[in-house]
Amino acid sequence: MTAAATSTPRTREALAELDRRDPLAGCRDAFALPEGILYFDGNSLGPLTHASRRRVREVTERQWGRDLIGSWNVHDWIHLPLKVGDRIARLIGAAAGEVVVADSTSVNLFKLLAAALALRPERRTILSEASNFPTDLYMAQGLADLKGAGVRLRQVAPGDLTAAIDADVAVVTLSHVDFKTGELRDMAAVGRAARDQGALVVWDLAHSAGALAVDLGGSGAELAVGCGYKFFNGGPGAPAFVYVARRLQERARSPLYGWLGHREPFAFEACYAPAEGIGRFQCGTPPILALAALDAALDVFDGIDLADLRRKSVALGDLFLDLVEQECAGMGLEIACPRDGERRGSQVSLRHRRGYAVVQALIDRGVVGDFRVPDVLRFGLTPLYQRHVDVWDAVAILRQVFETRAFEDPRYDRRGAVT
Amino acid sequence: MTAAATSTPRTREALAELDRRDPLAGCRDAFALPEGILYFDGNSLGPLTHASRRRVREVTERQWGRDLIGSWNVHDWIHLPLKVGDRIARLIGAAAGEVVVADSTSVNLFKLLAAALALRPERRTILSEASNFPTDLYMAQGLADLKGAGVRLRQVAPGDLTAAIDADVAVVTLSHVDFKTGELRDMAAVGRAARDQGALVVWDLAHSAGALAVDLGGSGAELAVGCGYKFFNGGPGAPAFVYVARRLQERARSPLYGWLGHREPFAFEACYAPAEGIGRFQCGTPPILALAALDAALDVFDGIDLADLRRKSVALGDLFLDLVEQECAGMGLEIACPRDGERRGSQVSLRHRRGYAVVQALIDRGVVGDFRVPDVLRFGLTPLYQRHVDVWDAVAILRQVFETRAFEDPRYDRRGAVT
Repeated sequence: MTAAATSTPRTREALAELDRRDPLAGCRDAFALPEGILYFDGNSLGPLTHASRRRVREVTERQWGRDLIGSWNVHDWIHLPLKVGDRIARLIGAAAGEVVVADSTSVNLFKLLAAALALRPERRTILSEASNFPTDLYMAQGLADLKGAGVRLRQVAPGDLTAAIDADVAVVTLSHVDFKTGELRDMAAVGRAARDQGALVVWDLAHSAGALAVDLGGSGAELAVGCGYKFFNGGPGAPAFVYVARRLQERARSPLYGWLGHREPFAFEACYAPAEGIGRFQCGTPPILALAALDAALDVFDGIDLADLRRKSVALGDLFLDLVEQECAGMGLEIACPRDGERRGSQVSLRHRRGYAVVQALIDRGVVGDFRVPDVLRFGLTPLYQRHVDVWDAVAILRQVFETRAFEDPRYDRRGAVT
Repeated sequence: MTAAATSTPRTREALAELDRRDPLAGCRDAFALPEGILYFDGNSLGPLTHASRRRVREVTERQWGRDLIGSWNVHDWIHLPLKVGDRIARLIGAAAGEVVVADSTSVNLFKLLAAALALRPERRTILSEASNFPTDLYMAQGLADLKGAGVRLRQVAPGDLTAAIDADVAVVTLSHVDFKTGELRDMAAVGRAARDQGALVVWDLAHSAGALAVDLGGSGAELAVGCGYKFFNGGPGAPAFVYVARRLQERARSPLYGWLGHREPFAFEACYAPAEGIGRFQCGTPPILALAALDAALDVFDGIDLADLRRKSVALGDLFLDLVEQECAGMGLEIACPRDGERRGSQVSLRHRRGYAVVQALIDRGVVGDFRVPDVLRFGLTPLYQRHVDVWDAVAILRQVFETRAFEDPRYDRRGAVT
């Protein structure tokens, strides 16, 4: 399979042979993929697995429907956020008891940024990159506005980040994989630079968790958040997760003192006292249907070697880019992600002046990627169900969209659509 | 039906006749109630409706499964929080565009308390009652701790609340119905007392929305939150809602600057700018499976006159208390809710020294209520599916539990269970 990374096979048959030898080939059967779709949008919404389909029915119809309120005990709903957290922990290089599922990525980021500010009370700066995922920047702005007292979000250009970490920086927040360019950041190096200045880092793993072997523990990361609905295939708006390294747990505290994060949630004490451990980063009642869908979606990762996953993801990305260069030369496409697979997350990004229309034309032809302003075509690589031949077919259709100038169809003019 | 409020029929047959004449009788068919259960816990987790069961399958299997990311447009997932908000608005006396569904009740309370503090920047007190729902107090404590600068939560005894509203109170927060005693607060009177002192009020409608005709607009309420999983039957951990009166919307701002609350969520602008209207109180990506379950659960309210609902709820409560007095005299039970139906929410509360064991014994015998520390037995009244004969049967079983001293069974000793 790694052959694809060094020399692209020139025939579909050669790629089919790679697929036959793929150690992850069997995983595809776990997904309820619709016919006739090449789905390269797992980094926006992962597809349904058969396990999630069954589990949602079970939890809705038998647990909620039949066992009602008793399900919190009988089906142990109450511990599901911690149990699913432990399953995710294994996939992001964390230990059991360091991850809990709760709320949305945005809300969790707020919790951790606030916790970090409280751990560095003499510092006032939250540092990030201007190109970071917008909602992450917004949440930091909101926290700074709420705190007042000189707390601010400082945004710098990507290249300037580590140099900008100074003695006033309480916390750096950064996406592990850039949502547009797909660039993979060096978690250990950024962490070292922050630690050298006494600052903490909150990682957003939205575009890396479930797609590559994130190594929070090995790289010394203290704090991270991530989402359940992308590479973890947990369903639309699946709950997100929070990671706090064990060594910080006793001192780190969520500012959202919800009942489920209380030491004794059912004692109904008048005063808040945070639970021991990661449980304190829970807040309100968890969305059980969504959480169960996520739990079941993680089944497909059981027994998977994340190194295999990463190897195939890099191979699919190299193949995609090789084929684009080979098949779509002179069509105005530009590669917008790192060419070096080791520096790239699990997506390829291209640029084109008519990017929005090209993406719409592709979707109409069964190749589902997505568009990011102003001109980025984004294709998520999801080695659990994608085949090498899918990449071949997708690029063939991309070439056809250009050859037929299908993207000039006025139907593909930009509207206020969800992109 | 209202006859029950003044003189309790002495036979089950007379109650069955009331059920036959009940204008809400047909609603019961909308629910997928398990056989052999008398479910008096709709105020902790409402039961599954057939509509929610069908809708969860549809959204999971056909929308997510088949249409994948395109569902945000094709099935208009993106506007679901506002659409479901508008449906809830009608049920709580709000106008369209004043309610949005998002996050949990706790998180929404945090948003509104922070918004209220920002609207009264010269004031530093959040005022509540010590007997308010603990998570509401915790969230207020968390916000005060995060803000610092002298912001504090002040808790007073229930009777002292209005007198305690002074010129330093930015916001009062209160449950519309007390979770233990079931006491219904006078929303208009508290609102007037607050306004007289220039303070705002954030109402928690968790135990009133869907159970009685909440009249936010008519009582001049500015801010409220509520949950989807109790009387709205939206499923375990269903998303919650936020109400902001239109006249405050332009100035009120959530401190959780999530992308979905942005004026242009898909423009990926670097700076946060809140959406016009109630949409700004959204934060991250909404949990679509859970939100769809809630949306479908609201179908049962279509065409319902909330005055009928309230009338029947009061009648069921009066009947429950009459029967307890009649059947369970001398058994150590004490009525812990207002005897006057107009001052009571949609629940009855009793006290008993062995309350926990009594509730467990009832559950074992098919009567599902719940227990609240230290000694409260709580029975939710849900007129959409409960019958007068259900109350008769429940009290008969309660009597039997006392007569046989079933609660002394050591199996019912208190453990760390979810109660």
